[in-house]
Amino acid sequence: MKKIINEPESFSRETVEGILLAHSDRLKALEGDLQIIARNDEVKPQKVSVVTGGGSGHLPVFLGYVGNGMLDGCAVGNVFASPSANKMFNMIKGCDYGNGVLCLYGNYGGDNMNFSMACDMAEMEDITVRQIRVKDDVASAPANEKDKRRAVAGLVYAWKIAGAAADMMYSLDEVCQVTEKALNNLRSMGVALTPCIVPEAGKPTFSIGEDEMEVGMGIHGEPGIEVRNKMSASETVKVLLDKITDDMPLEKGDEIAVMVNGLGGTPLEELYICFKEAHAYLEAIGVKIYSKYIGEYATSMEMAGMSLSVLKLDDELKDLVDYKASTPFFTNINK
Amino acid sequence: MKKIINEPESFSRETVEGILLAHSDRLKALEGDLQIIARNDEVKPQKVSVVTGGGSGHLPVFLGYVGNGMLDGCAVGNVFASPSANKMFNMIKGCDYGNGVLCLYGNYGGDNMNFSMACDMAEMEDITVRQIRVKDDVASAPANEKDKRRAVAGLVYAWKIAGAAADMMYSLDEVCQVTEKALNNLRSMGVALTPCIVPEAGKPTFSIGEDEMEVGMGIHGEPGIEVRNKMSASETVKVLLDKITDDMPLEKGDEIAVMVNGLGGTPLEELYICFKEAHAYLEAIGVKIYSKYIGEYATSMEMAGMSLSVLKLDDELKDLVDYKASTPFFTNINK
Repeated sequence: MKKIINEPESFSRETVEGILLAHSDRLKALEGDLQIIARNDEVKPQKVSVVTGGGSGHLPVFLGYVGNGMLDGCAVGNVFASPSANKMFNMIKGCDYGNGVLCLYGNYGGDNMNFSMACDMAEMEDITVRQIRVKDDVASAPANEKDKRRAVAGLVYAWKIAGAAADMMYSLDEVCQVTEKALNNLRSMGVALTPCIVPEAGKPTFSIGEDEMEVGMGIHGEPGIEVRNKMSASETVKVLLDKITDDMPLEKGDEIAVMVNGLGGTPLEELYICFKEAHAYLEAIGVKIYSKYIGEYATSMEMAGMSLSVLKLDDELKDLVDYKASTPFFTNINK
Repeated sequence: MKKIINEPESFSRETVEGILLAHSDRLKALEGDLQIIARNDEVKPQKVSVVTGGGSGHLPVFLGYVGNGMLDGCAVGNVFASPSANKMFNMIKGCDYGNGVLCLYGNYGGDNMNFSMACDMAEMEDITVRQIRVKDDVASAPANEKDKRRAVAGLVYAWKIAGAAADMMYSLDEVCQVTEKALNNLRSMGVALTPCIVPEAGKPTFSIGEDEMEVGMGIHGEPGIEVRNKMSASETVKVLLDKITDDMPLEKGDEIAVMVNGLGGTPLEELYICFKEAHAYLEAIGVKIYSKYIGEYATSMEMAGMSLSVLKLDDELKDLVDYKASTPFFTNINK
């Protein structure tokens, strides 16, 4: 296990400790609980709250997007494990400004169950809550079973849109409405080249052949839809974008936001080569890239691989993508 | 070779193509030459120019720091290979605003030779040039042979300081002076866990045992000073900071900028655990962390490993570290 860590069982806790030491001006642990992270900066008092939660091992997902213009809070689980309903409830309560709370999280069994329980608990304390599950991973279920799809890097766009809408003083209903619209326009698809190692396991729980790629593998190593012989960047991008556009057709003149996301072990150089290929693919079908994110946005620790996410934009979504956001791990402010 | 690329021989070129497609609003290739990159935004006309150059495979180093408040231009070589003197000369010429050009680059044989030739050529065209070589890697030579030391992630601090000074309208002499001061106060040291693969070679050129770490390995795989059995994050940070502070003593009350840099394949979680350990080490000796960078700032493609850099600050260096900078790969603007 080629990791620079201390005790495997304290991996998540120590990660959060490091993050809080580094970013105490912007993040805080509510009541000292390292599993409940909230913004430590000034929040518009009439704003709807947008929160999330999930397992560790995906930085910057989840807690890395807590900050101005994105998330208000996050419940943090152990590696690849959902935080408990109690932690989620305390997080929701601590992040409620009295204007409603949207729980916006990935469609995974544990998170679904725990957030549902947490929301029940919140409602009993008269907190207005809504839940929206992100299901952007095209590979994880066919089109006629969309509700079974998992979340991958598209989470970041979900939070970007909802967080911007909340900061623009949309009501809770309006935040939910525009988030649902964005999710209908959002698809992702990835390819993995190497496994990752959960620290407490100490070794990979699956393997990928030296000359193979797993198309559609999930960010916890969930099986993909196809094992392929190693493909070039050009072929890889074509396979992923073909699958995405089969599921969500793009037409000449469409404008999109695109993310080329590294899963952890893949160098930035390769992501830019993939962006070049995605640009060529999209240009050939007359689709315009309005906004792009290229880098590590949602990882599986040291897993090598890459995912593409596409968000089809209209004028409202463009404004929300452009809206200023700044967290310790994300900013679109450059002037 | 677990890479998502096209032809190995076009790796560097395609990387730059992707970067220019993504960031054409901020970067340009001078006269269409993909090995000569310059800012594409507005530059203060009376400003001194700060430029660099070096091999590919280290993103965001080198060209990723071309932008407002940092570098004005960069000559781009093939993977781990110096760009030619001619490319460097054309880059210097294209980035000269008439107020002098500082060539600020890593202390490597090929770069030294080529930049020296390029500067001779520039002087023959009446361009005022200076050269400063970055030698922050404590591991690469003993204290009595400091001039032999290589550059590693400390390059980023060198560019941050010089770029800020230039943008604050320091004269060429003043930019050089404050850069030399910063370099005297700057030390780095790293540890590697896995090798990286040069695309055209197709396999690692060296190996590190499954239970071993190489202390002091260079960013091209230059041999380190010691092969150690795998250490915890706490032990690793202690080994690196002991070595750094042996070379540059830190005293109670000192304020520093610290960088925890991932070499490519090491997850962000581990870097934050290392930051936590560095924070504890420094707190115990009464040293205050004034500024920190945690992430991938100077890589060796997919190499797993981490380096620490320490820059001892005075009031002037604090102002220069804080000064706003924004490039496609770096920003310290968050409001």
